[in-house]
Amino acid sequence: MQDQRSDNYKKQAEKFRPLLQNLTKNPGAEMLRYGWRMQDVISLGQGEGCAPTPDFINEATYTALKNGKTHYGPVLGQPALRDEISTYYKNIFNLNIPSNRVFITGSGTTAMHLALTSILDVGDEVVAVTPIWKNLLGAVEIAQAKTHTVALEFTEGAGWRLDIDKLLAACTPLTKAVLIVSPSNPTGWVMSKAEMQRVIDFTRERGIWIVSDEVYNRSLYGQNHAPSFLEVANNDDLVLTVNSFSKAWAMTGWRLGWLVGPSFSEGIIRDLALYDNMGPPTFTQFGGIEALKNGEAFIQEQMKMWQENLNYLYDRLSANPKISLEKPISTFYAFFKVKGEDDCLDLAKRFIDEGGVSLAPGCAFGHDSKGWIRLCFAVSRTKLEKALDRIEKVIGA
Amino acid sequence: MQDQRSDNYKKQAEKFRPLLQNLTKNPGAEMLRYGWRMQDVISLGQGEGCAPTPDFINEATYTALKNGKTHYGPVLGQPALRDEISTYYKNIFNLNIPSNRVFITGSGTTAMHLALTSILDVGDEVVAVTPIWKNLLGAVEIAQAKTHTVALEFTEGAGWRLDIDKLLAACTPLTKAVLIVSPSNPTGWVMSKAEMQRVIDFTRERGIWIVSDEVYNRSLYGQNHAPSFLEVANNDDLVLTVNSFSKAWAMTGWRLGWLVGPSFSEGIIRDLALYDNMGPPTFTQFGGIEALKNGEAFIQEQMKMWQENLNYLYDRLSANPKISLEKPISTFYAFFKVKGEDDCLDLAKRFIDEGGVSLAPGCAFGHDSKGWIRLCFAVSRTKLEKALDRIEKVIGA
Repeated sequence: MQDQRSDNYKKQAEKFRPLLQNLTKNPGAEMLRYGWRMQDVISLGQGEGCAPTPDFINEATYTALKNGKTHYGPVLGQPALRDEISTYYKNIFNLNIPSNRVFITGSGTTAMHLALTSILDVGDEVVAVTPIWKNLLGAVEIAQAKTHTVALEFTEGAGWRLDIDKLLAACTPLTKAVLIVSPSNPTGWVMSKAEMQRVIDFTRERGIWIVSDEVYNRSLYGQNHAPSFLEVANNDDLVLTVNSFSKAWAMTGWRLGWLVGPSFSEGIIRDLALYDNMGPPTFTQFGGIEALKNGEAFIQEQMKMWQENLNYLYDRLSANPKISLEKPISTFYAFFKVKGEDDCLDLAKRFIDEGGVSLAPGCAFGHDSKGWIRLCFAVSRTKLEKALDRIEKVIGA
Repeated sequence: MQDQRSDNYKKQAEKFRPLLQNLTKNPGAEMLRYGWRMQDVISLGQGEGCAPTPDFINEATYTALKNGKTHYGPVLGQPALRDEISTYYKNIFNLNIPSNRVFITGSGTTAMHLALTSILDVGDEVVAVTPIWKNLLGAVEIAQAKTHTVALEFTEGAGWRLDIDKLLAACTPLTKAVLIVSPSNPTGWVMSKAEMQRVIDFTRERGIWIVSDEVYNRSLYGQNHAPSFLEVANNDDLVLTVNSFSKAWAMTGWRLGWLVGPSFSEGIIRDLALYDNMGPPTFTQFGGIEALKNGEAFIQEQMKMWQENLNYLYDRLSANPKISLEKPISTFYAFFKVKGEDDCLDLAKRFIDEGGVSLAPGCAFGHDSKGWIRLCFAVSRTKLEKALDRIEKVIGA
């Protein structure tokens, strides 16, 4: 697979910025679109479950809509939602994050985009832990910076592990930010609080930002939450934490996220958001408030379902000698390797064409994951069983 | 008033990009926030009416929400909405704009941001017609380009007029785009189709983009719509047209807009939007479909109310010897000058402090409008009357 675009794409792009003409390809997005075009395909390729948003969140949103919450609101979000997120950090993480450090955004992606474009310029470097969702590398590309990747190491029987020394050694005087997704999509790897402490001790001394994607931080099995960089950071540390309602509350289609910045960041992020998008929708934020206030039972219920699916899937796939899979400790993804298959794009395409099941190719998570496949198991058991039947049909049981 | 930021802001900003440290101030946004902090202030300072979104749009949205339209959708929007906008251009403008040139965005501001950041790099220049909403100049700033402004000329008795020769003469070899808002916020000036033809003949020859903000194009009094650059453009001309559901359908708080690009732009805009925000909310787009399908009666009804308010307001304000105001032919803004007042920030502040009415200072629309004030009259007659009473209390009748 080539990272470079086709000549046709380049021809179409030539009237636009050189930056966009030279964006690397996004094989995950391409494969998703390929799967959408086919009939009778079970999609486990996208990062969401099949459950819709719970009714109590929808109803709160409808109430806001009926009550005329259809006017412009503040660029950084409704004060009531910013307060509620502050309360949420107190309740769940036992952290004091004042509302003026919380910025509501029209999606986690928007939060990531604002975070990166608030700090990165041409010539800056980002050190990113991989495997990582290609869209985040793309967000660094459009922020005009270069990415240096440090790969998690995989050992059969021991799973995924980050060599923190390697991460820190990858930082140069040009490094403006370290980009960490923990819990990790697609591996389920989780950075410990002690590791976070080591990273922040290092970055604090050098004036390097930490951009921490914590979208999956309510999906650590057997725990209420995964560690957060906010637990080791002071209120004026250079940390930008990206989060979203998408995963924990089944709200992917809402495009509602948030960013937590240091104590001095409100004015800058407000200006940037003002010109970038002028803030999130008004009435949907009332759904967000309801999710935070009354969503814990739903989160527990989802986690139980994911855990059961994971157990079932793990037993079944790990019994297959062709598959190499460590049981993830978090997220709703199984990230596995099929022995003898090194071209994951070709394999993902065969899964669609021959099996009728759409999965994400490993190369959607960086060069280091080319032989891998990501499966989202946040679906009904029936759907999961059927998908595994189809997978086995393609690769053999 | 200074364009430069305070030392405190600069200190807070110093950890961020130099670009953001040096953003010029936004007096309109500051004045709005100032007004919000006060009790019993009538706000005519923001660009929206007091009417909420009509029920039929809300109900279609709720139906989508209940039907589980809460999952990820395509980055460029729901195909059904893209098709509906294509149909809308056919029905209202008699134009053939295929769906693959229509991109749904999470607000008109997002559409503008994507348009500008798809074409502008450091060192590029934009020629913009002023007065113009400061947020658009800010969007050019964060796209790292320089703006050259060409001011509409105001003549008492004749209103606002653009010298097209001046506009074209302002273009240099560094000019990447011409930015035109027609109908114009705040003046209500409307570019004629013949003028658009002159502009596009010029830009086509030189490979210059036109970025056309047509958010107010359903607010030309006595006409069904204002001219659109799409009426004079070929499908591969370098034209990016920004639009939004905000004004015509009273959906400001929805953050739902669209961008129309040339035939070759879909892939580039999709990649940019993927990394910028990953697309608009799913269920709210079904409200957008309903607005386009069944919103014409609402638009007529709104226009009637605005026209009546405009007549009332014009009769009353133009009888005041202290006020200089030409009757606008479009939009829901009165843009006027108070004789003897040259510091519009000071005046806008006095309107809040002494009168309890929040208006937008002219300097929120560029340097050329420093002595002016913008009033949004898309409110109930009672509110408008009360606001005018308060205005007269401050400046005298």
